[in-house]
Amino acid sequence: MGRVTARRRVRHVTAGDAVARPETLVVEEPLEIRVNGAPVTVTMRTPGADVELAQGFLLTEGIVAERDDIVAVRYCRGADVDGVNSYNVLDVTLAPDVPAPDVDPTRNFYTTSSCGVCGKASLEAVRLVSKHCPGDDPTTVTAETLSQLPGKLREQQKVFAATGGLHGAALFAADGALLVVREDIGRHNAVDKVIGWALEQRRIPLSGTVLLVSGRASFELTQKAVMAGIPVLAAVSAPSSLAVDLASQSGITLVAFLRGTSMNIYTRPDRVTG
Amino acid sequence: MGRVTARRRVRHVTAGDAVARPETLVVEEPLEIRVNGAPVTVTMRTPGADVELAQGFLLTEGIVAERDDIVAVRYCRGADVDGVNSYNVLDVTLAPDVPAPDVDPTRNFYTTSSCGVCGKASLEAVRLVSKHCPGDDPTTVTAETLSQLPGKLREQQKVFAATGGLHGAALFAADGALLVVREDIGRHNAVDKVIGWALEQRRIPLSGTVLLVSGRASFELTQKAVMAGIPVLAAVSAPSSLAVDLASQSGITLVAFLRGTSMNIYTRPDRVTG
Repeated sequence: MGRVTARRRVRHVTAGDAVARPETLVVEEPLEIRVNGAPVTVTMRTPGADVELAQGFLLTEGIVAERDDIVAVRYCRGADVDGVNSYNVLDVTLAPDVPAPDVDPTRNFYTTSSCGVCGKASLEAVRLVSKHCPGDDPTTVTAETLSQLPGKLREQQKVFAATGGLHGAALFAADGALLVVREDIGRHNAVDKVIGWALEQRRIPLSGTVLLVSGRASFELTQKAVMAGIPVLAAVSAPSSLAVDLASQSGITLVAFLRGTSMNIYTRPDRVTG
Repeated sequence: MGRVTARRRVRHVTAGDAVARPETLVVEEPLEIRVNGAPVTVTMRTPGADVELAQGFLLTEGIVAERDDIVAVRYCRGADVDGVNSYNVLDVTLAPDVPAPDVDPTRNFYTTSSCGVCGKASLEAVRLVSKHCPGDDPTTVTAETLSQLPGKLREQQKVFAATGGLHGAALFAADGALLVVREDIGRHNAVDKVIGWALEQRRIPLSGTVLLVSGRASFELTQKAVMAGIPVLAAVSAPSSLAVDLASQSGITLVAFLRGTSMNIYTRPDRVTG
């Protein structure tokens, strides 16, 4: 749809000298995700791979588990006052036997617990239950293979190179073969697009794979990996305490500060060989 | 509360050699914000300045407008099975004449519109209405002063230096004097803490100030600046298309890629002199 980047006129200043010039920016637009016609969430995303984004979101929130749980995904036909469809509303029709999400405003999709956060340990209060057990995945990956992944991701990040404004996520086989790359202005969206691609390809659970993210490893990104059955999560930047705790409890391997031949392995180092 | 950082044992690999060593991580914990006892949202945040975070969130979501709209902010007394209070639930009591938010699950705090995104232009669909008009603010700031701000922020980012895991936000007077710095694992939270500080200090609207963020300028961060009446938003990294559009419509000055003596001014360059 040609809406991944946009041009804007800017005033560029260097050491006191100013020039006017056009700049390429990454596009940010709202996407409303509806399920069976009912609004579930609005996310600020970069247009493109919207169906994957919606499918990945529904999988990592525990609403669907496989491709056949979804019957159809369609853009809403609404148009603005000029008669232009914004392509910013997607309606997902679930299979008849799949319960629609119980949209609870107190959850904001951070937890399935109706008890809230009070009186619970942090991890217990916010974690979702995965249908998969990536902790049992016997996959191993060499440190050398891991070292090569950030370079492979960067090669594919065309829009980031143009705008400096996008997060990247990539899925690899354990031998380092690239399966898919997605970019988005939102870290979570880039990962949801990758996982939504895998759902479409009927590759859930993602046994034997490595998920690489271009930024930090937060609790939510770790949770998305666990929900999709990914055994190894690698991040170019820092992890959070709760990401490490969840990786540890789920038995997935968390690698961060992956730069050159250097990396930190926070959990399940037995999967990293060589 | 000593929970801003945590220590974890990691396996550090460099060029094939592995050593076990302790690492300092940034802490990520859920914070549930309640208003008059009713849960409104859960955000993943770095503990510390929680009251400011809750107050800034309520202001930038348009629920409160000034300090006197809030009567009390208290941690929930709930404790886990070991009898330990998690300090992860805050209840905000509004003044009797302030309406409690109408928590609509379709909004997720991205819009006050009950019509949703369909059939609206993007900006119209997601923007909140500010009580302030930062576009009318006559403040000017020199390019030289702007150039010095990132260094001042970095000097204060103690936890980032230790963990590499935190976003920073800082508020400055137009002459470059530092007013407040806050850090958080979440970009939005760091800004909400800064604005919550200003609410506490009865400094809303923040006329004559510059808000600096350590990362990118998204729509949501720009909206927070507009809601707090901040006339100049500066970012170290890239802006998004919708951030530029909102800054343009609101009449605030948006500066990004602020590095060394170089910067891009996307909107209202008349406020940047020299």
